[in-house]
Amino acid sequence: MPTLDAILPRLTDEMRADPDWGAVATYIPELAGVDPEQFGISVVLADGTCHSAGDCDTQFSVQSITKVFTLAIALGRSGDQLWERVGREPSGRAFNSIVQLEQEQGRPRNPFINAGAIVTTDEVLGTRAPRDALAEIVQFVRHAAGTDDIHINETVAASENAYGHRNYALAHFLASFGNLLNAPELTLGTYFHHCAIEMTTKQLAMAGRFLVDAPALPRMISPQRIRRLNALMMTCGHYDGSGDFAYRVGLPGKSGVGGGILAIVPNVASIAVWSPGLNRYGNSLKGTKALAILAREMSWSVF
Amino acid sequence: MPTLDAILPRLTDEMRADPDWGAVATYIPELAGVDPEQFGISVVLADGTCHSAGDCDTQFSVQSITKVFTLAIALGRSGDQLWERVGREPSGRAFNSIVQLEQEQGRPRNPFINAGAIVTTDEVLGTRAPRDALAEIVQFVRHAAGTDDIHINETVAASENAYGHRNYALAHFLASFGNLLNAPELTLGTYFHHCAIEMTTKQLAMAGRFLVDAPALPRMISPQRIRRLNALMMTCGHYDGSGDFAYRVGLPGKSGVGGGILAIVPNVASIAVWSPGLNRYGNSLKGTKALAILAREMSWSVF
Amino acid sequence: MPTLDAILPRLTDEMRADPDWGAVATYIPELAGVDPEQFGISVVLADGTCHSAGDCDTQFSVQSITKVFTLAIALGRSGDQLWERVGREPSGRAFNSIVQLEQEQGRPRNPFINAGAIVTTDEVLGTRAPRDALAEIVQFVRHAAGTDDIHINETVAASENAYGHRNYALAHFLASFGNLLNAPELTLGTYFHHCAIEMTTKQLAMAGRFLVDAPALPRMISPQRIRRLNALMMTCGHYDGSGDFAYRVGLPGKSGVGGGILAIVPNVASIAVWSPGLNRYGNSLKGTKALAILAREMSWSVF
Amino acid sequence: MPTLDAILPRLTDEMRADPDWGAVATYIPELAGVDPEQFGISVVLADGTCHSAGDCDTQFSVQSITKVFTLAIALGRSGDQLWERVGREPSGRAFNSIVQLEQEQGRPRNPFINAGAIVTTDEVLGTRAPRDALAEIVQFVRHAAGTDDIHINETVAASENAYGHRNYALAHFLASFGNLLNAPELTLGTYFHHCAIEMTTKQLAMAGRFLVDAPALPRMISPQRIRRLNALMMTCGHYDGSGDFAYRVGLPGKSGVGGGILAIVPNVASIAVWSPGLNRYGNSLKGTKALAILAREMSWSVF
Repeated sequence: MPTLDAILPRLTDEMRADPDWGAVATYIPELAGVDPEQFGISVVLADGTCHSAGDCDTQFSVQSITKVFTLAIALGRSGDQLWERVGREPSGRAFNSIVQLEQEQGRPRNPFINAGAIVTTDEVLGTRAPRDALAEIVQFVRHAAGTDDIHINETVAASENAYGHRNYALAHFLASFGNLLNAPELTLGTYFHHCAIEMTTKQLAMAGRFLVDAPALPRMISPQRIRRLNALMMTCGHYDGSGDFAYRVGLPGKSGVGGGILAIVPNVASIAVWSPGLNRYGNSLKGTKALAILAREMSWSVF
Repeated sequence: MPTLDAILPRLTDEMRADPDWGAVATYIPELAGVDPEQFGISVVLADGTCHSAGDCDTQFSVQSITKVFTLAIALGRSGDQLWERVGREPSGRAFNSIVQLEQEQGRPRNPFINAGAIVTTDEVLGTRAPRDALAEIVQFVRHAAGTDDIHINETVAASENAYGHRNYALAHFLASFGNLLNAPELTLGTYFHHCAIEMTTKQLAMAGRFLVDAPALPRMISPQRIRRLNALMMTCGHYDGSGDFAYRVGLPGKSGVGGGILAIVPNVASIAVWSPGLNRYGNSLKGTKALAILAREMSWSVF
Repeated sequence: MPTLDAILPRLTDEMRADPDWGAVATYIPELAGVDPEQFGISVVLADGTCHSAGDCDTQFSVQSITKVFTLAIALGRSGDQLWERVGREPSGRAFNSIVQLEQEQGRPRNPFINAGAIVTTDEVLGTRAPRDALAEIVQFVRHAAGTDDIHINETVAASENAYGHRNYALAHFLASFGNLLNAPELTLGTYFHHCAIEMTTKQLAMAGRFLVDAPALPRMISPQRIRRLNALMMTCGHYDGSGDFAYRVGLPGKSGVGGGILAIVPNVASIAVWSPGLNRYGNSLKGTKALAILAREMSWSVF
Repeated sequence: MPTLDAILPRLTDEMRADPDWGAVATYIPELAGVDPEQFGISVVLADGTCHSAGDCDTQFSVQSITKVFTLAIALGRSGDQLWERVGREPSGRAFNSIVQLEQEQGRPRNPFINAGAIVTTDEVLGTRAPRDALAEIVQFVRHAAGTDDIHINETVAASENAYGHRNYALAHFLASFGNLLNAPELTLGTYFHHCAIEMTTKQLAMAGRFLVDAPALPRMISPQRIRRLNALMMTCGHYDGSGDFAYRVGLPGKSGVGGGILAIVPNVASIAVWSPGLNRYGNSLKGTKALAILAREMSWSVF
């Protein structure tokens, strides 16, 4: 088998040579202004070594990828009670659809679509002030990544809020069904801020170590919970492109609209890839391609 | 780790002691009349040995489980062209929903919901007579299982046809969008017949060997296709309970309304479980429970 | 006020001068082959006089307009029991949508969308042979129109059947919910045949007299039922363009995909207009325009 | 024909004798606390005379009935441009459904469902301060009713805002599609306030005179616009019970969740009825019954 250190630079070259970079998200200026022609990838193996190539030191907005971390925190705080407020099924809909929320009486289908992540954030927030909840989230991510150099981009958070009518609609809709503990603006404030965390692929791959379940990597949650988070990432991690991702890549993963994807090879590796251009599902175009190739070359499919 | 031969009888006893057997399917008399208080399980390991307990020699109607076999055949005949006619995404709907089919202009979400399996069957049928297509399907299953003692129950097939208005609606709907090569009654005749195949859990576990990808087991399709079939089983194999099954069991699987489930531990084992009573998603109640316990005790989650 | 005999020829000239004829229905060859550049109009006043202009002696396929006649017959046979099988609300959907039928558990929203008209036809059919039901329907229409020169076009009926997958889907779907008394092919055979009745605008305007409620016109149903049929035509008579028709024309009416529209001015007149080209709702483009002008010039809005 | 002064007291007695009063709206305390056992009715004829019976001097919250007045104002301000922002079709959905809004890309189906009325209010608001828009609305209503004794109940408006998550969801959803000129809280503040206008049936029947189109009654809008408003009330005025209302009553009308209904007999009369208990569509139970009886006895159906 070829080594990672041989594969990653070659994969990066291949990705950079491909002229189709996809289209960056445009709903906020901070994302719309990102240069699409960037690609970075980092892999942390079970032995703790980190292997990278490309733009692996550039921080990007991780966006929805934080939903994995807040879900882990929410489950740590509330356990299986969380599932009374949110389901565990793929949605068969766009990430910001409100249709299903009406059909299912205010209980989001899963914690990775926006409505579900708002509920999860609300559970993490509890009765605290948003800054206290955000401090816990950032601390969790920093601890997972093993570095304090991870921050919230306040400008991005402010833009999310300014252009966040769809999320406000979801939050008020949840509230109308009694599925929000806090005022929409408080929960959304927390939500917009944790989505505005920035990381490099190196940092994100490191932060994903707690989902690998390997003796040499940090343990932050139980093995059973690790398996379950990975199961959710597999079935729901890429919105309405989850089936396609499972089919092509075969790994649990979670994408963000900033172009990042965190993918896990259980017991083996944590992978972070980033390229800002998106495919039609809203997932990184080249990130998905690169993961498909890497998984095939390394025989890393879980299947 | 305890051995399978110790676990399976204990698991069977535990399942039989549980008073909640679920409810058998009632839409055709042949299924409605099955005694719900039955439970059987069989596991074929990578070394080819078969381990069973409970009602493992009773034949039952495998129903939708044959969708895995017909999908394998269809991909063998048509390759990726099949995906022009059917998608690969979880549906977020009941197995027989027609709503999504209208929204998506006659292209079913995946090959395991009824509409998608009708398209797959239509692809397998091609321009042949139904009996020729059925002969290939039965032969494929027998070859996979290593036995000729596997048959179609003609009474079940006739009942499916007699009570099959919903499937006729789906087939005509597909035809109205030009997504059916054959007349609805021909494709449905083929579909109803292959769903009426009967097997024991021993036979079904044996038939599932081709999805395990192990040197000592029969190879009928390429390793890449094995992985992809398993990916589809993981994200779509249990209808609108697929996310829950992935969360609780962590294995790719395919259920049938007759109460059977085929689950795969990649590279390790093929598992068939059967108990006729269903849960609210239409999947075997005790089959799902047993698989969750077995996967946990054997550490067989793919995650 | 100008007289009808002055208005109708002028209106016809105006319609013929308008270059946008809309697009004829294309789902069966018999409709697809109709010359779109035709326009005819006929008005029967409360005194029984008939006034016409344009292509008023050309027979066309009345299609869904027969739904008004079959509904009148069904109510005559079954009274308000019919409403247990079909609703009275606008659908907010296309005429052949199956989505709402799933949401409402097999009870069509109203008798003028296809699913509802299939149920109505099924009620008219009852336990009779289709030819007996069809004889009653044709007899009813002939009696209403005061002529025996009204026939079913068998070629159109055969084409409807050959291209009728969507309606077969609806019928089987209804059957799957137990809302069909007869086999789908029997009810649909009856349905396709009565939709294939052909009339001229003169005949259709005459046939509409029984909905006017005027002493000098034939009485076939009670005044209360007349009002109720008109109410249904107002709220549901033009599929998802019913609100627009009410807004622009202000009269109860029923359109057919052959380009005909029957409109009623309660106590005053029966109007039939025909032009084969359709608007985006599937209603006659020029027929709707002409009715809007006529209603305004004659002050014939019910509002 | 019996006279109104004979019919109205008898009708009131009949309504009061009926033990089924329906259920009052409970989503805000001010409506939940209303005594359901009240019934009042007022009719203003074309000659300007007002005839009443029952609780015709009790002010109640007119709620959605104000949507007719704000629509008249919006059309006066913007003309047909309004229809670029909102449709004219019955919705086939509950008054507060958000599903259709997603399907139709943020353009509400009609101005009488909540989403549509929010858009209409936004159009009336324009670039003004809410208090200026409200002053115009209240002035319009007072002028129509011929009295200054009509006010906004500030407590009701405050409650609507406090319990208004569903409407906030709709407003933010509209904003996310760019179909809101003002900040959601400004438009909703205006909306909640005009819905909190209180009137007696006498005042409401008087206020409805401008929709009758009779020489002796005040003219505030053109005859054509009167007809069109009445058409909209007919097809969309009672949410998903509009077809049923047209079928049973046969008059254009607009209901409010406070239990009031305004119905118009074109050229003949303006009718206001009030009874706080609602039917399953959210329309006054006894108000609808009373209107059906009155329309039949007076032969007031438009059909």
